[in-house]
Amino acid sequence: MPDISTRGKLMPNSPIRKLVPLAEKAIQKGISVYRLNIGQPDISTSEKALEAIRNIKTRVVDYGHSAGNQSLRKKFADYYKSINIHVDFEDILITTGASEAITITLLTCLNAGDEIIVPEPFYANYFSFATATDVVVVPITSGIENGFALPPISEFEDKITPRTKAIIICNPNNPTGYIYSQEELEQLRDLVNKYNLFLFSDEVYRELCYDGYRFTSVMNIDGIGNNVVLIDSVSKRYSATGLRVGALVSKNRELLQTALKFCQARLCPPYLGQIAAEAAIDSTTEYLNGVYNSFLERRNYIVRELNDIPGVYCPLPKGAFYCMARLPVDDAEKFAIWMLEEFEFKKQTVMLAPASGFYYNTDLGKKEVRIAYVLNINDLKNAMACLRKGLEAYPGKMPVQKDVKECVESEAGS
Amino acid sequence: MPDISTRGKLMPNSPIRKLVPLAEKAIQKGISVYRLNIGQPDISTSEKALEAIRNIKTRVVDYGHSAGNQSLRKKFADYYKSINIHVDFEDILITTGASEAITITLLTCLNAGDEIIVPEPFYANYFSFATATDVVVVPITSGIENGFALPPISEFEDKITPRTKAIIICNPNNPTGYIYSQEELEQLRDLVNKYNLFLFSDEVYRELCYDGYRFTSVMNIDGIGNNVVLIDSVSKRYSATGLRVGALVSKNRELLQTALKFCQARLCPPYLGQIAAEAAIDSTTEYLNGVYNSFLERRNYIVRELNDIPGVYCPLPKGAFYCMARLPVDDAEKFAIWMLEEFEFKKQTVMLAPASGFYYNTDLGKKEVRIAYVLNINDLKNAMACLRKGLEAYPGKMPVQKDVKECVESEAGS
Repeated sequence: MPDISTRGKLMPNSPIRKLVPLAEKAIQKGISVYRLNIGQPDISTSEKALEAIRNIKTRVVDYGHSAGNQSLRKKFADYYKSINIHVDFEDILITTGASEAITITLLTCLNAGDEIIVPEPFYANYFSFATATDVVVVPITSGIENGFALPPISEFEDKITPRTKAIIICNPNNPTGYIYSQEELEQLRDLVNKYNLFLFSDEVYRELCYDGYRFTSVMNIDGIGNNVVLIDSVSKRYSATGLRVGALVSKNRELLQTALKFCQARLCPPYLGQIAAEAAIDSTTEYLNGVYNSFLERRNYIVRELNDIPGVYCPLPKGAFYCMARLPVDDAEKFAIWMLEEFEFKKQTVMLAPASGFYYNTDLGKKEVRIAYVLNINDLKNAMACLRKGLEAYPGKMPVQKDVKECVESEAGS
Repeated sequence: MPDISTRGKLMPNSPIRKLVPLAEKAIQKGISVYRLNIGQPDISTSEKALEAIRNIKTRVVDYGHSAGNQSLRKKFADYYKSINIHVDFEDILITTGASEAITITLLTCLNAGDEIIVPEPFYANYFSFATATDVVVVPITSGIENGFALPPISEFEDKITPRTKAIIICNPNNPTGYIYSQEELEQLRDLVNKYNLFLFSDEVYRELCYDGYRFTSVMNIDGIGNNVVLIDSVSKRYSATGLRVGALVSKNRELLQTALKFCQARLCPPYLGQIAAEAAIDSTTEYLNGVYNSFLERRNYIVRELNDIPGVYCPLPKGAFYCMARLPVDDAEKFAIWMLEEFEFKKQTVMLAPASGFYYNTDLGKKEVRIAYVLNINDLKNAMACLRKGLEAYPGKMPVQKDVKECVESEAGS
C-alpha cells in the first residue's frame, strides 16, 4: 500500500472537532453533551434566509459564476457600504465559507515555504490551511496572564525574515476576543509597507464588540489598499454556519484575477447557500440586535461563572463569542477527553476545545480550553454545573491556590 | 505591492470558463449565447431535490459533521449497493463537489513535486487541482484521429519514475467519452500494484454509457482496495451542479482518516446541498431514464450535425455528455473568441471550450474544441446553425479538403 503524503501526516487534527467521536459515543450512552467546543450558536438562522430557501422557484440548480452570483456580490457591497467599508462588487469574490477564502488567499499570495506571521493563540484552522498549502506559520505569542493583549508591534518586526510574505489577523479575535485598535492597525500598515507584505484580516465577528470597544476594518486603513485581503463569512452574522458562504475582498486587481483562477477550478460556490446568504443580508435590525444581546448576555454570564469555579481563570473577551479559560488540571486535553469518556453529572457532560491546538507551541495552551458561549443561558448553566463537578472529580486536578490570578501568574513562566 | 505567488501565476485560466466575460459582453449587446462550453445541462434538477429544499423545516442551518451528514453517507452507500458497488458508509466522505474530493485526495496522497499520470485530453481542472497542490501532471496522450482510444497500458509504465505516486482516470471520460474496459482496469491494477501507486477514478458520469458499452468501477477490481479512491458527485446524475455535493470513497482507512483532517479544516460540506442530495438519490427511475434518453438523443444529433459541417471531424463518444471536435480553423481558441466578440447569426452565437486547456501540451488541442451537448435539441439545432455559419465567415478558416477523415489524419502528425 502506498504511503500517505507527508503533508497529510503533518496536517493537524482539528482541536475543535477531534473529540467529536467521543461525544458521539457519550450520546449513544444516553448522555447529553453541551457543545462548547465549536462556534455553532443555537440561535435561529435569520428567518429571511430560511424563507428564501423555502420559496425557491428554481428549475435547475446550476453552476453559477465562479466569482459568485453578481446579485450576491452587489448585496455584499451594499452591506459593506452600510458599515462604512467602501468596496465595489468587483472587489468581492464569493467563496465556500471563510475557510475557502483563506485557502485561496494563501495560494494566491504565498509560495510553498513562505512565512506568515500569526498572533497566537490563533483560530486553529489557520494552522491547518497553512499546512495544506505548505506555508510556514510564525507565531507572535500573547498570553492569558495579561488577557491576551497584543504584544507591541515591534515584536512583529522581529519575526520578519526574507521568507515573510504576509501577516494574518483575526479581528475581533477567535479565540481570545481581542479587538485591534486603529492605532495598532496603523502600526501594522507601516510594517506591511516597510517590508512589502500582505495583510489578511479575518473580520467575520465584526458585529460582536462589547463594552464600547470599536471595530476598525483593515479596509479603512489608508495607504495599504493593494496589500490587504479582507476575509468574511455570513456564518456567524446570520447564524447560518452550514450555508458555507464567505468572501474574499481586496482592492488589488491582480490578486483578485489570480484568486479567480482558483475559484474557476472549483467551479462555483454553493447555489442554495448563496440564495440564502443574499436574503440574510436583509435581516431585520431586530434580529441582529437580538443576536448581539444574546451573545453579550452569554459572555457576561459564562465569564463570571468560570471565574467563580475554584482554580479557573478566564479573562473577559472584548469581542466575538469565545473565551479562553485556564483550568486547574494537569492537561486540558486529557481533561476534555475524560469529561466525554468517564464523566457525567445528571446524565450530562460538556465538550471543550483543548487550547493547545490554538498555539504553534502546543505546550503553551496545555492547561487552557477554548469555550464557545453559543448556547442559551439555561444550557450554559447546566454546562457550568457539569464543568464545576467535573473539575472536582477529575483525577488529574491540580491543587487550587488561594488567589487564582496569582496562581496563573506564578505558572505563566513555567 | 508584494508579488503574487508563483503558483498563482502558474495556475491556468479555466478553458471552460475563461471566455465567460466575452459571453457576458455579447449578451449585453442583445445576442443569445448557446453555452456548449460547460457541462451545465438544461435538464430540470430532480424534483425530489427541489421538494426537499422547499419543505425544509430547519431552524438552525448549522455546521454538520466534517465527513458529511451520516444519513447522506448511508444513502450514498445504499445507492452504490444498488449498482453493485459494495462500500460501507464509513468508507465515504462527503465533499464540496467532486472538485474538493480531488483536491483533498491529492493533498492526502501526494507531496509537492510528486507525479500523477493522467490520460489526455483530460478534464481541464485536473491540471488546475494539480497546480494548486504543487503536483506534477504527466500526460498519456490519446488523439482525435483514432477516436481517443486509450494507448496501450505499457505506455503508462513507460512514464513511471521514482516520483510517480498515482494515476487518475475519468471513466466515462470527460472530455472524450472514452469508457475503460474491465481488462484495461485490470491492467491498471497490475501496474498500480507493481509500482505501489494510488489509482484515482472519477466516475461522475457512470450512468451515461451508450451503444452497449459497459461501465466498470475501480471499486469492483479485485486486489487493489487500499490503492483506490473513487471520486463522485451528484451534480450530473440529478442535474444539480450547483449543490456542490460530491464524495471521496475508499477502503483505505488511513487514507480516509487523513482526508478527514483536511475536511475538518473546512468544517463541513454545504448543509442545504446535502439535504437536496440525499433526497435526489431517491429520484424516480422515470426521471433517471429521461435524463439518459435526453443525452443519448443529443449525442446522436450533435455528432451527426458536426460531422456534416464541411471540415469538421467529431468522433462518436461512448459515454458522458461531451464530444471533442476538430475544426477547420487556424486556432480553435481564436475562433471561440471571434464567435463571441465578432460573430452573430440571427442575433445568436455559440460559446465553445477551446480544447488546448484539456491537454498538457497545449499545441495538441489547438484546432479542437470540447462541446458539451447539454442543451435541448432545438437549442442544439440553432447552435449548430450558428457554428456552421461562423465557420464559413471566420477569417482564419482553413481550406476544407475533400475527405474530412483524410484531412484529420494528414494533419495529425503536424
